[in-house]
Amino acid sequence: MARRGLLIILSSPSGAGKSTLSLRLRAWDPTIRFSVSATTRPPRPGEVDGQDYHFRSEAEFKQMVREGRMLEHAHVFGNFYGSPRGPVEEAIGQGCDVLFDVDWQGAQQVRNSPLKDSVLSIFLLPPSITELRRRLEERGKDTTEVIEKRMEKSWDEISHWDAYDYVLVNDDLDATEAQLKTIVTAERLRRPQQPGLVDHVRRLQTEFEESL
Amino acid sequence: MARRGLLIILSSPSGAGKSTLSLRLRAWDPTIRFSVSATTRPPRPGEVDGQDYHFRSEAEFKQMVREGRMLEHAHVFGNFYGSPRGPVEEAIGQGCDVLFDVDWQGAQQVRNSPLKDSVLSIFLLPPSITELRRRLEERGKDTTEVIEKRMEKSWDEISHWDAYDYVLVNDDLDATEAQLKTIVTAERLRRPQQPGLVDHVRRLQTEFEESL
Repeated sequence: MARRGLLIILSSPSGAGKSTLSLRLRAWDPTIRFSVSATTRPPRPGEVDGQDYHFRSEAEFKQMVREGRMLEHAHVFGNFYGSPRGPVEEAIGQGCDVLFDVDWQGAQQVRNSPLKDSVLSIFLLPPSITELRRRLEERGKDTTEVIEKRMEKSWDEISHWDAYDYVLVNDDLDATEAQLKTIVTAERLRRPQQPGLVDHVRRLQTEFEESL
Repeated sequence: MARRGLLIILSSPSGAGKSTLSLRLRAWDPTIRFSVSATTRPPRPGEVDGQDYHFRSEAEFKQMVREGRMLEHAHVFGNFYGSPRGPVEEAIGQGCDVLFDVDWQGAQQVRNSPLKDSVLSIFLLPPSITELRRRLEERGKDTTEVIEKRMEKSWDEISHWDAYDYVLVNDDLDATEAQLKTIVTAERLRRPQQPGLVDHVRRLQTEFEESL
């Protein structure tokens, strides 16, 4: 039966496993699309327009916001970032879920957007702050200074945990991955995600009336 | 992490698979309790008080309703039937789910009861009216007259399908059983069902503040 796609929001502080789990979720079901952000910052070497970001001028970006074509947007360090609405509507109309890697502010805006009825929001908590720091240090991607900045920001992000539908403590990647898959599988069965039910019930009604 | 139990409501017209699927769900997880109804009708031979029904006098029943000790109740063919609130609150406080086999009216009342935040409601639709009749006839439990009555009532029940969280077309018992288990597993992970998260976040906050 045809279904409507979900807007799957995955938020967490840096180092809680969001990127790894996003990749695993998409490896499990490649029909899940990733919401590619639009931004006004210039492309870095190697970045591809439409794949890493939709690169837009500030005038274009602001016009999209004015026309309600951004599900969420923010101004960070002098640049605009946002999630264009068009590709998301197209995907969910075709029955494909769209995954959003956004922080609590982005999540809040998507949750209050015109597509709010299809939003599934999940927050990942670390088992402890010590473990969060250990993971950031272990992945060796950031300088000590950047790690300190991420750690400072982590509480700001964590403090919004209670606005999400599901909250998972990511103690063990495999266990959390299994929980994510279960949640997505179940949420796809919710009534509003199955527009085909309306036709099914109409057929039952016709059949019932003809049997009278 | 300690969790709060769910009130799992399973509704469907007679013959759509509700009883079989209830049994399978409880066989899968025996900690799921069944909500035993209270009734004012006299016990039939072999029926055990507290197991098949809680048998109550009309005065006792009405007092329970007045005192808000019934999650739902109805008056059917001269007798009262209802779901006592006490055992349900006790069970969900211990982290056990409670399964309700109620019709749309009972479901509606439970969904609007003080325990509404823990309600998970699922409706089972038959693949067709012909198949519904075939199943009622095949199980050989009812007389032709009773089957006709059940068929007449079926549309009344089906017409309330869109008040439920999940709606499953029970085409294949095994597939529907798997869907039910996935839904229950996922719903147990919802934030409100995990009161232990509050303590976990409090610990993260303390740890974060001590690291400053």
